[in-house]
Amino acid sequence: MQPWNFVVIRDTERRQAVRDIFLAAREQELPNIAEERQALYRKLKLEGICESALNLCITCDRTRSKGSPLGRWHNPEMDIYSTVCAVQNFWLAARAEGIGVGWVSIIDAQALKGLLNIPDHVVPVAYLCVGHVSEFAPRPDLELNGWGSRLPLSSLIMSETFGGNGEDVLKEIADEARR
Amino acid sequence: MQPWNFVVIRDTERRQAVRDIFLAAREQELPNIAEERQALYRKLKLEGICESALNLCITCDRTRSKGSPLGRWHNPEMDIYSTVCAVQNFWLAARAEGIGVGWVSIIDAQALKGLLNIPDHVVPVAYLCVGHVSEFAPRPDLELNGWGSRLPLSSLIMSETFGGNGEDVLKEIADEARR
Repeated sequence: MQPWNFVVIRDTERRQAVRDIFLAAREQELPNIAEERQALYRKLKLEGICESALNLCITCDRTRSKGSPLGRWHNPEMDIYSTVCAVQNFWLAARAEGIGVGWVSIIDAQALKGLLNIPDHVVPVAYLCVGHVSEFAPRPDLELNGWGSRLPLSSLIMSETFGGNGEDVLKEIADEARR
Repeated sequence: MQPWNFVVIRDTERRQAVRDIFLAAREQELPNIAEERQALYRKLKLEGICESALNLCITCDRTRSKGSPLGRWHNPEMDIYSTVCAVQNFWLAARAEGIGVGWVSIIDAQALKGLLNIPDHVVPVAYLCVGHVSEFAPRPDLELNGWGSRLPLSSLIMSETFGGNGEDVLKEIADEARR
């Protein structure tokens, strides 16, 4: 489907303007965070907009596959999903080259669209900070900082129906891992 | 965030019921396909629900990160995006093991939810057919069958703003590739 575009952003002033959008969004989100976690929220490393080598805005053109709308009748969001797959492919490819990627999700899409001249029919799906990093942490930052904890695999795997006991699947996975 | 669940489906009757949902959806979509392409649409290999080793429904629980809604105030769809990233990770991991994955997007989500007992607050993001395949095609099936053609990279890469000439970026990519 290729509904995506990759917009590479390097200009310092533009990046500072994006960072201002992030900072304003963070202030807006703060009251929605439980009071006892607000101090932690402020301390978390949630962006590297100005300090990274470059920024990348990956967008989805909602009109691009108009001519060949395969599978879009029931699931019009498939173009957004395709774009997210492209983001994840980029992320893994970068990581395989030793390059760090951070996804800035605390951002006001409308403000970003204005700043980057993104037209109405195009959605900015991901805003990424890309560059060499001092280290790759052994576990996700949010886990290391106590924001969240990893869910046990057994709560995520189900069999046959939603909520269906996934023990048989987990046993097969464990058996396979032992081989 | 881990908003996902992986529901493994192997039961033959359940898979036949899913295939019936696909077949009905394909008939519903057909009138939306340009008349001259309808014969091709019918011939395309768009599912392997019953013949694959197993099916996998990857879902997103929209309520799971209620307690720690980081970045959700502005972009509530981030949990869906996280789930799509998990789908793509699964897809690539399977491919690396020589296992084929097909994403069935021509499907009625409501009918699927009924069949798999998926509750209202959970979205079935991807329905996948998973198994060994006779071959991996050198190019996407839809390209090989003339449904669509690959867009040139130059139309997908932009610089600084949406629509901004990406020639400088393309030149850098080409220089890097030559090294």
